[in-house]
Amino acid sequence: MHVLVLGAAGMVGRKLCERLLRDGHLGKAEITRLTMHDVVAPKRPEKAPFQVEAVAGDFALPGAAEKLIAGRPDVIFHLAAIVSGEAELDFDKGYRINLDGTRMLLDAIRLVGGGYKPRLVFTSSIAVFGAPFPEKIGDEFFNTPLLSYGTQKAIGELLLSDYSRRGFMDGISIRLPTICIRPGLPNKAASGFFSNILREPLAGKAAILPVSEDVRHWHATPRSAVGFLLHAGTMDLARVGPRRALTMPGLSATVGEQIAALKRVAGENVASRIKREPDPFIVGIVDGWPRDFEAKRARALGFTTVEKTFDDIIRIHIEDELGGRFVA
Amino acid sequence: MHVLVLGAAGMVGRKLCERLLRDGHLGKAEITRLTMHDVVAPKRPEKAPFQVEAVAGDFALPGAAEKLIAGRPDVIFHLAAIVSGEAELDFDKGYRINLDGTRMLLDAIRLVGGGYKPRLVFTSSIAVFGAPFPEKIGDEFFNTPLLSYGTQKAIGELLLSDYSRRGFMDGISIRLPTICIRPGLPNKAASGFFSNILREPLAGKAAILPVSEDVRHWHATPRSAVGFLLHAGTMDLARVGPRRALTMPGLSATVGEQIAALKRVAGENVASRIKREPDPFIVGIVDGWPRDFEAKRARALGFTTVEKTFDDIIRIHIEDELGGRFVA
Repeated sequence: MHVLVLGAAGMVGRKLCERLLRDGHLGKAEITRLTMHDVVAPKRPEKAPFQVEAVAGDFALPGAAEKLIAGRPDVIFHLAAIVSGEAELDFDKGYRINLDGTRMLLDAIRLVGGGYKPRLVFTSSIAVFGAPFPEKIGDEFFNTPLLSYGTQKAIGELLLSDYSRRGFMDGISIRLPTICIRPGLPNKAASGFFSNILREPLAGKAAILPVSEDVRHWHATPRSAVGFLLHAGTMDLARVGPRRALTMPGLSATVGEQIAALKRVAGENVASRIKREPDPFIVGIVDGWPRDFEAKRARALGFTTVEKTFDDIIRIHIEDELGGRFVA
Repeated sequence: MHVLVLGAAGMVGRKLCERLLRDGHLGKAEITRLTMHDVVAPKRPEKAPFQVEAVAGDFALPGAAEKLIAGRPDVIFHLAAIVSGEAELDFDKGYRINLDGTRMLLDAIRLVGGGYKPRLVFTSSIAVFGAPFPEKIGDEFFNTPLLSYGTQKAIGELLLSDYSRRGFMDGISIRLPTICIRPGLPNKAASGFFSNILREPLAGKAAILPVSEDVRHWHATPRSAVGFLLHAGTMDLARVGPRRALTMPGLSATVGEQIAALKRVAGENVASRIKREPDPFIVGIVDGWPRDFEAKRARALGFTTVEKTFDDIIRIHIEDELGGRFVA
């Protein structure tokens, strides 16, 4: 089996590739080849149990998508995107990559023909929803994005469903919760603080909380995100039918609950590194964000989070990213 | 005020232009210029109270949209589309006109800049919904189109909302019910029979009913459709907020109720011209169509149907299209 990962240098893409390299198979199929693509060259693994290519380039340039699928990947994980903050600041870039790039990929697959029908897993986002919404958003609630990023993701979902219905591919869109705790350095996503206030204190550093503690949001660990991708890449899509966009399960928690979990798992001293500096700009953005979801359909289709509590979210970060140790 | 109508040779576009020519104003603004555009040249009115141009061309060719808005229309009615049946049969044509053409128009407006911010009224469709759905679809129900046409309309709505939110235009998408009674010859829409079974018998001709009488669907007259467009072109959009797609009001009726109304208004003999010839292909398509809507939000925003009963729908056709006479 040949697997292609677009956005392989991103945080989730990197973790997905590490997992594929470790497992050596996807579901029951043995992986024989992995193509890792991103705008900057993804880091090649030092040793790999199968053929691995790391390709750098802009996948939204004419002809780029055709090249990427020239090797006829059986499963494509499409994680490439301009993130929310950047897509809002740079209108052209956001639409070019998130909309045109996705469509070029879909069209390149469509135009192969001759029975070529790969599995395509598209990472969408809960940014397809925009306030006002119910406290707990159901699976049949409408998409009214309040950012260009969410608009582009919602359009990608619609295209993928139509292209799948027409038989050009076997696609599924999964709306990831906000990933928490996001390792590494902050990116341009406005949601960064949800991870910063946990990751930085665990590393002995101060972190700024720009919103109030009663802000509620929807989270999943990187480990769960990889699990969702693997399940989406292997599950029987006949069970999904024509509605190919699924809100993934997650944990709903307030910032106050996040901080309480940090205190329980790592102690008061770690939590004392959080500095409260309200930022009206961030407060305004986060105000329009979802707080909780039902995600019944995804759960019924076998998508599950590894973590059961927010304490687990913190423990998983310490285990997966910090080698089991934090700065007390 | 300069008004541009795209799709001006289509049934609704023609009626809209006739109304603008008759009224001479749009809301409180005097119309000084009307540009009628379609892929075939729209028929120019014999006399007009203001400057009128009829322009023929493919609006989805590079540069075409820029030319259309070179005259800086204040209000743009975008009714141009490849209809559902044709967009399903010709994938490329449907996407090129319904998606690319719409986006080119939006981008041409966006790139003018300098404070140019026209009103854009986009005719969307209830084809953005796909079965299964509740008996009565609410305003917050999600879009899961089962046709490429509905996919393209849903994407157009998302783009228009985002471009409006960003301040490039003041746009609104209105989802028209199935127009009944559609005058003239059948087009390639699979919904044609809803009108055929009334229009043809009233003209003394036989008509085929390809589905059962318990099929329920959502209708509005051409007169109401024009009323929706005029209201969308003049209303205060600040009241609408960022959710710029509205399901228009209509009448929900079964085919049996349609036929009963025809009998009441035109007599048993007219209704006897309907021949029942079930067509599994049409039955299959119509099975996935909406039956009824709440349309609360549009009603609260002042959109109303002229007709109050299905009998009115038939009377309005006789009045507007048949000069008050039908073949008894």
